[in-house]
Amino acid sequence: MFSGAQISLYPMTDDFVGVIVNALSALDPYRERLRIETDDISTLIVGTPDIVFAAMRDLFVAAAKTGKHCVLHATISRGCPGEPDDPMCHVPEMTGPLAPIEERKAQALAAVGSIPVAGQPSAAQFSLYTLGIDQHMDEIYGCIDFLKNSGVFDRSKNFCTKLRGDAAPVFATVHEAFVRFGPPQGHVTIDLTVSANSPSKI
Amino acid sequence: MFSGAQISLYPMTDDFVGVIVNALSALDPYRERLRIETDDISTLIVGTPDIVFAAMRDLFVAAAKTGKHCVLHATISRGCPGEPDDPMCHVPEMTGPLAPIEERKAQALAAVGSIPVAGQPSAAQFSLYTLGIDQHMDEIYGCIDFLKNSGVFDRSKNFCTKLRGDAAPVFATVHEAFVRFGPPQGHVTIDLTVSANSPSKI
Repeated sequence: MFSGAQISLYPMTDDFVGVIVNALSALDPYRERLRIETDDISTLIVGTPDIVFAAMRDLFVAAAKTGKHCVLHATISRGCPGEPDDPMCHVPEMTGPLAPIEERKAQALAAVGSIPVAGQPSAAQFSLYTLGIDQHMDEIYGCIDFLKNSGVFDRSKNFCTKLRGDAAPVFATVHEAFVRFGPPQGHVTIDLTVSANSPSKI
Repeated sequence: MFSGAQISLYPMTDDFVGVIVNALSALDPYRERLRIETDDISTLIVGTPDIVFAAMRDLFVAAAKTGKHCVLHATISRGCPGEPDDPMCHVPEMTGPLAPIEERKAQALAAVGSIPVAGQPSAAQFSLYTLGIDQHMDEIYGCIDFLKNSGVFDRSKNFCTKLRGDAAPVFATVHEAFVRFGPPQGHVTIDLTVSANSPSKI
């Protein structure tokens, strides 16, 4: 299994470099458990999904707390057949057979039910893609069903689902979508956008 | 068939609202052929892939010409089984049987070979997802093979492919990836990021 994300942070301010550089210290507690590579478009973080999502959340919250309109985008992936297996990415959820979908929905709901808040309002949207399987929409619809009960569901949009709420349960909800839906060792990706301090709240 | 994109424009400047509002006039020539809906995270544009890509390109170029660091992100989709068929989205490429992959690679190369430039340097990265089929990596690898010969290939990254060059052939190349790979009536999505004027060119 190989898992990680290509992440980009967009602070809508003349001082975008300063906001990004200051926010990067939020990654420090995770650096030993991640492989990190940066270029001019995105930063790759490779590690277990729980660490990848915690790092993204803390980076986003650190930038958003400046009060500037900030957006984080992430292309998240696990199990891509083109990527090498990496012991750094192994987690129990990503092994064994695919459990019944009702069981996985219940596990996902339990996991997001008691998340401490980050004190940062956010809006997010994401698309979940389960690849290399027939009937991929069964997994998508199962996931949407979980999202509707997650406490941060906002609405269904074309091509994606929109969430709204504190950044901690929002990232936790997307994490659960990522690890609980699609086969444990299957190829699953997420296209995620999280926004804070937008002047056009709708 | 239903096709379109959720697009977001991120100008890294205090005047991000002004840059976005001014760039929006670049959509005017396409408005009659698109359905457009905006919220605080993205703007949905629904139409045929050629019009959707032309509109994204012109919007991005209009913003990038300000000289500010600007990024456009798009979640692009066609043939999602959860979306209604829409006559507004019908194009000949999205009908009929799946042609041999070598034939499609040649068609894609011919289409990007004579694109007039936009005069706007750009860097981009994207992931192509062909859903609901086994052997989805055959389509991905076929597409990567096309990309390497597209004239704007930069390098393969984890989870995505990076392009670099004038914005017009860059958008044209991603358009070809979108319409030529995966079954004509299949569910295909792209997670696209295009950037201009980054201070950290790598």
